[in-house]
Amino acid sequence: MIDSKIAVDADRTYRELDELAQFSDVPAPAVTRIVFSSADRAARQYLTNLFEQAELEVRSDPVGNLFARLIGSEPDLPVVGTGSHCDAIPHSGRYDGTVGVLGGLEAIRSLQASGFRPKRSIEVMMFTSEEPTRYGIGCLGSRLMSGKLDPIKAASFKDNAGVTLEQTLVDFGCQGSLDQVRLPSDYYSAFVELHIEQGPLLEQHALPIGVVHAIAAPAALRCSFTGVGGHAGAVLMAGRKDALLGASELALAVERAALEPGNQDTVATTGYCKVHPCAVNSIPSLVELEIDIRDIDGERRNRVLASVQNAAQAIADRRELTLSCELINADPPAKSDAKIVAAIQESCKTLGLPHLDMISRAYHDSLFMAMIAPVAMIFIPCHKGYSHRPDEFSSVDAIGKGVEVLAQSLAKLSMN
Amino acid sequence: MIDSKIAVDADRTYRELDELAQFSDVPAPAVTRIVFSSADRAARQYLTNLFEQAELEVRSDPVGNLFARLIGSEPDLPVVGTGSHCDAIPHSGRYDGTVGVLGGLEAIRSLQASGFRPKRSIEVMMFTSEEPTRYGIGCLGSRLMSGKLDPIKAASFKDNAGVTLEQTLVDFGCQGSLDQVRLPSDYYSAFVELHIEQGPLLEQHALPIGVVHAIAAPAALRCSFTGVGGHAGAVLMAGRKDALLGASELALAVERAALEPGNQDTVATTGYCKVHPCAVNSIPSLVELEIDIRDIDGERRNRVLASVQNAAQAIADRRELTLSCELINADPPAKSDAKIVAAIQESCKTLGLPHLDMISRAYHDSLFMAMIAPVAMIFIPCHKGYSHRPDEFSSVDAIGKGVEVLAQSLAKLSMN
Repeated sequence: MIDSKIAVDADRTYRELDELAQFSDVPAPAVTRIVFSSADRAARQYLTNLFEQAELEVRSDPVGNLFARLIGSEPDLPVVGTGSHCDAIPHSGRYDGTVGVLGGLEAIRSLQASGFRPKRSIEVMMFTSEEPTRYGIGCLGSRLMSGKLDPIKAASFKDNAGVTLEQTLVDFGCQGSLDQVRLPSDYYSAFVELHIEQGPLLEQHALPIGVVHAIAAPAALRCSFTGVGGHAGAVLMAGRKDALLGASELALAVERAALEPGNQDTVATTGYCKVHPCAVNSIPSLVELEIDIRDIDGERRNRVLASVQNAAQAIADRRELTLSCELINADPPAKSDAKIVAAIQESCKTLGLPHLDMISRAYHDSLFMAMIAPVAMIFIPCHKGYSHRPDEFSSVDAIGKGVEVLAQSLAKLSMN
Repeated sequence: MIDSKIAVDADRTYRELDELAQFSDVPAPAVTRIVFSSADRAARQYLTNLFEQAELEVRSDPVGNLFARLIGSEPDLPVVGTGSHCDAIPHSGRYDGTVGVLGGLEAIRSLQASGFRPKRSIEVMMFTSEEPTRYGIGCLGSRLMSGKLDPIKAASFKDNAGVTLEQTLVDFGCQGSLDQVRLPSDYYSAFVELHIEQGPLLEQHALPIGVVHAIAAPAALRCSFTGVGGHAGAVLMAGRKDALLGASELALAVERAALEPGNQDTVATTGYCKVHPCAVNSIPSLVELEIDIRDIDGERRNRVLASVQNAAQAIADRRELTLSCELINADPPAKSDAKIVAAIQESCKTLGLPHLDMISRAYHDSLFMAMIAPVAMIFIPCHKGYSHRPDEFSSVDAIGKGVEVLAQSLAKLSMN
C-alpha cells in the first residue's frame, strides 16, 4: 500500500485558500465571487498557475469548467475525478467549494511527492457556476457535463443585466460550443468531491470526516407579483394592489409549507426578494422572489413545491395581482456509489480517522456528476455549520485530514 | 380688476414640462430625478434659464431651494409665494411637483404680459428634495425653511452610499450654512401651491379645480430586522432566524393596522424593502423596511404608528430577530388659510371654473410652509389619480386652467 508515504501539506493548502479568497468583490472576511466576473477571472488564472506548477495537464471546456490531469500509467482508461467550485455567492465565505478544488490539487501533489504512480489518470477540476447567483440555476458546469441541461437552453440564460450566457462566454474568452461540454458516461471510473459540511453535525459529534451517502433533491422557483403602483399617500387602502403584500404572504406560505407535519427534513427559503420601485412613498408595483426547496425525499420535495405554487396562485387571485411563476430546476436526489463509499471508509480506517455516514442537504456538482459517473463525497467539519456567510470557517487541521482521506481514496480508486 | 387681461400660455408650459422631463436617469415615459444627481443639476439649470429669461430675480439658498422673484411696487412688504418641487422618485412621472414650478412661472409670466404690476413681490420657487428618496425624509427644503428641521441634524443625514448631506451640498456647489435656510415668519404674506391631485376625485367629479383645505399628517418609520444568515439547504427550519420572514409579517401588520375599523382615512404602506444578501440559496440575514403612514387625523395616525411599532417588536421577539426602529418623521396635519382659500374660490368664480373643496392625502412642501406662512393649495385632475408612476398624466387643458386660477389668486393676494 501507498498509505504511509503520502504526506499532505495542509499549511500550503491553507495559504492557497487565503490567497484565493483575495479574489473577491467585497472586503475580507466576506467573499463575493460571481461567475465570469473579474474576480472569477483572477481566481481561474491563480488556479491555472498552481495546476501548471504541479505539472498537471490543464484544459478548459466551452463553459469554462477547468480540468487538471495527472497522467496515469494507463492513460486510456476512464479517469478518477475530484474537484468542486470556486464561485462564491454575495457576502459569503472562503471554504465552500474552494476546499474541494485546492484540496484536490493538494491530494494529487501529495501523491506525486510520495512517488505514487496511478494506473488511471487522476483529474482535479473546478466547475463553472455551482452557485445560482448569476443565472438563477446552480451547477451550470456539471449540469452541462452530465447532459442534464440542454446546451441551447443554457446559451439563452440571461443574467440580471439581460446579457445571455452565450454572449458572456464570448466576452469572457471561452472557446467552443456548449454542446461540446457533455462528457461520455465512460469518461470517469469514479468521482469524489471533498467539501465542508455546511451543517453542524460533524462538529457536534467531534468527528473529522463525513462520508456522504446521498444528496438532497433541490428545486428552485422564480415568482413575481405585479400589482398597481401609485402614491403611498393618495391611493386609499381599499383600491390597492400592492405587490409586496402578496410577496410577503408567499414568503410566509413557503415557511408554512416546509413546516407541515411529516416534513422534518424539508427546508424551504425565500432568499431573493427585489421590490420595485422600492421608495418609501410609493406602493410596490412589482416584487420578484426566488424560492429554494430541498428534501432528501424527492416526492416530499415535490409536494412542498406544489403547495408553494398553489399558495402563490391563491394569493395572486385574492389580491388581484398578476403572478408569473417559473420552475428554475427540480432535480432528483443522488445516491453515492457503494464501492467509492467503501474506499473512503477504508481510507479513514487506514488513517485512524473516525467518520460519520451522512447525507448532504446542500447540493453539489456531485448531484449531476452522479448522472454520468459513480460518485461519493467527503465532508469535513466547519464552525457551527456556518456557510454562505463571511464567518464560514474550517481549521487547517480539519482540511488537512480531509485531504489525507481524499488522497488515500484517489490512490485506491486509481488502481482499480 | 385684472381678470380679463391675463392670458395663460398653457402650450408653452406643456412644452416646458416635456423638456424638463428629459432630465431623468431612466428612459421616458418614466422619470427618475433624485436630488443632487446630475439630472437634478440639469433640471435646476434649465429652470434658472427660464426664470432669467422671464427677467425674474433669481437666488438659491444653502440647501439649494431656488427662488425667482417678480419685484412688486412695494418691495419691502412680505411677498406672495408659489412653487413646488422638481425631484422625482425612481420610475415615476413628469407632473408631480413640476406643474407647480413651471405653472408658477407661467402664472407670473401671464401677469407680466397683462401689464399687471403687483404691490407685493411674487416669488416662484423650487423646493429641494420634497421626495424622501435620498435621505429617507421628505420636504428637506421646506422643513429647513420653516425651522421644523434642525440644520445640524440635517447636515448629518446620510444617503445610501453613506455620504452626508453636508458633504453632498459642498460637492454640488451649494454655498453657505444650513442654519441660513430658515425664513422669518413675516417673509410671506401668503403661499399657494399648484399641484396635480394624485388622487381620482376631480376626474371622477369632472371638476377642473380642487381647493385644498387641509393636508394629511404624514409619518415615516425605518425598521430593520437582523437575523442569522446561512445556507438555504443546510440549515434546518427549526434553528432559523430568517429576517425576511419577520419583514413579511411586518408588511402585513402595516396593512392590517391601516385597515382596522374606524381608520377609513388612514393609509399605510411598506414601500421600501431591501434584503441582504438576496441570493436564492442564502437565508436572509438582514432586511430593511421603510413604512409610510398618513391620516388627516393626527391622533389616529399616531395610533396606527404605535400599532405598527408594537407589531414590529412582537415579531422580533417571537422570531428572535434584532429590531432597529427609527421614526424618520411624524408631522402634524396642516390647515389652509381661510383668506387664501377664499381668494382661490373667488378666482374660480371669476373664471367660471367649478371647484371641489378637498383635503390632500399626499403631503407637500405646503405642509411645512404652513408653519411660517398662511397657505393653501390648488389641485388639478390627473388621469385616474395615478402618481409616482410613469403613466402619471395631466392634460394641457387641465394644467392651463390650474395656472389661470393660480395667476388670478396670486394677483389678488399680491394687492392685499
